[in-house]
Amino acid sequence: MARRLYELHGANDLRFSPYCWRTRLALAHKGLDAEYVPVRFGEKDKIAFSGQQKVPVLDDNGHVVADSFAIARDLEARYPSVPSLFGGAGGIPSTYFFNTWCDRVVHPAISPMIIADLFGNVDPRDHAYFRKDREAKMGRRIEDVQVGREAKLPVFRQVLDPVRFVLDKQPYIAGDEPAYADHILFGTLMWPRCVSTFELLDPADRVWSWRERMLDLYGGLGRTAKVPAAA
Amino acid sequence: MARRLYELHGANDLRFSPYCWRTRLALAHKGLDAEYVPVRFGEKDKIAFSGQQKVPVLDDNGHVVADSFAIARDLEARYPSVPSLFGGAGGIPSTYFFNTWCDRVVHPAISPMIIADLFGNVDPRDHAYFRKDREAKMGRRIEDVQVGREAKLPVFRQVLDPVRFVLDKQPYIAGDEPAYADHILFGTLMWPRCVSTFELLDPADRVWSWRERMLDLYGGLGRTAKVPAAA
Repeated sequence: MARRLYELHGANDLRFSPYCWRTRLALAHKGLDAEYVPVRFGEKDKIAFSGQQKVPVLDDNGHVVADSFAIARDLEARYPSVPSLFGGAGGIPSTYFFNTWCDRVVHPAISPMIIADLFGNVDPRDHAYFRKDREAKMGRRIEDVQVGREAKLPVFRQVLDPVRFVLDKQPYIAGDEPAYADHILFGTLMWPRCVSTFELLDPADRVWSWRERMLDLYGGLGRTAKVPAAA
Repeated sequence: MARRLYELHGANDLRFSPYCWRTRLALAHKGLDAEYVPVRFGEKDKIAFSGQQKVPVLDDNGHVVADSFAIARDLEARYPSVPSLFGGAGGIPSTYFFNTWCDRVVHPAISPMIIADLFGNVDPRDHAYFRKDREAKMGRRIEDVQVGREAKLPVFRQVLDPVRFVLDKQPYIAGDEPAYADHILFGTLMWPRCVSTFELLDPADRVWSWRERMLDLYGGLGRTAKVPAAA
């Protein structure tokens, strides 16, 4: 038996899923290794054993959990030793709000700025599925959505205002030390980083500085991740 | 000596400060009584002993703390017995993000819809100060800002989307039981309720149902609060 993390797999070995990034960091935070199992959009059969169709799926020696937040809760319960992912069980509900905010507010603010770049880094075997699925949701061609993206940057940066304010008071979203709240937003920001050379943050922004610190954590797990070549 | 809460005081004994509401609920949550000391905008001298100019100020038998979030942290530290306000110290940083989001995103989405009603319920002795201060910030007459407010409701309700999503998974923002995260947003929503008859929430919205439950907590502390008469 072994610990296996089933992760979304793009073209050129790029691993861009924000949810899989959160789980990778949660595992590293707990000092846990995991074998990486790549899963394309078209390979739902690989994770059918989990009873659902989305990555990440963690198979920890036969103990199977899907959904990044559920995995983090499960890791915290089964590996309660420090460092905690939530500062104790009491931190879970408010971290869940942060998770929800990142998924439902930050993520959609990023998507139209990088969706065509993302498409270009999806495994070609998934292109037909991805285009059909996303264009049905957006009601436009993928390539058209990204046009004029520079104009969307100010709104996106304004969305991050509460994070910026918190980071003025404490070095990490989770407080004095990084924890799962940081992994959540970092995952959301690794998603564009791993598919696009379009920079979303201003180097003068303290969210940028925070991301720099996050990139270096756990032996540079984020820093050493494969990213697309600059144009 | 005694425990005294210095709170903003409006016309007709209305107590509408969102920050003071948070502290009132935090005290009730811990089962602590406090003597209410009304403070108008023009009575900064009453709280000069706190070394700053904003309410709420809690003077707990000579132990003085200002700022609603600082007060909640302080109460949690000095009255650690259950029920916890944060689910333990680990819940504080992520609750602070929620506090920041309510103050910097939800509050400004409400303000233009109720600012003239608010003005009408400010103590008349504070009218000159309030008008000058707020109109300088908004660059418009108070009465003009509120015109056409119905058009702003959809955006405000969309802002609450992450709260709505969380409340679909758990009965309170803080989890299975209400705690300080709930007090925060409840305070933000008591602010319009205590100055305006303009209803911000849809009765079919689960945020409405949550607010109903919150109104009944602690012996109906919110439910029995004085509100303006319907027009």
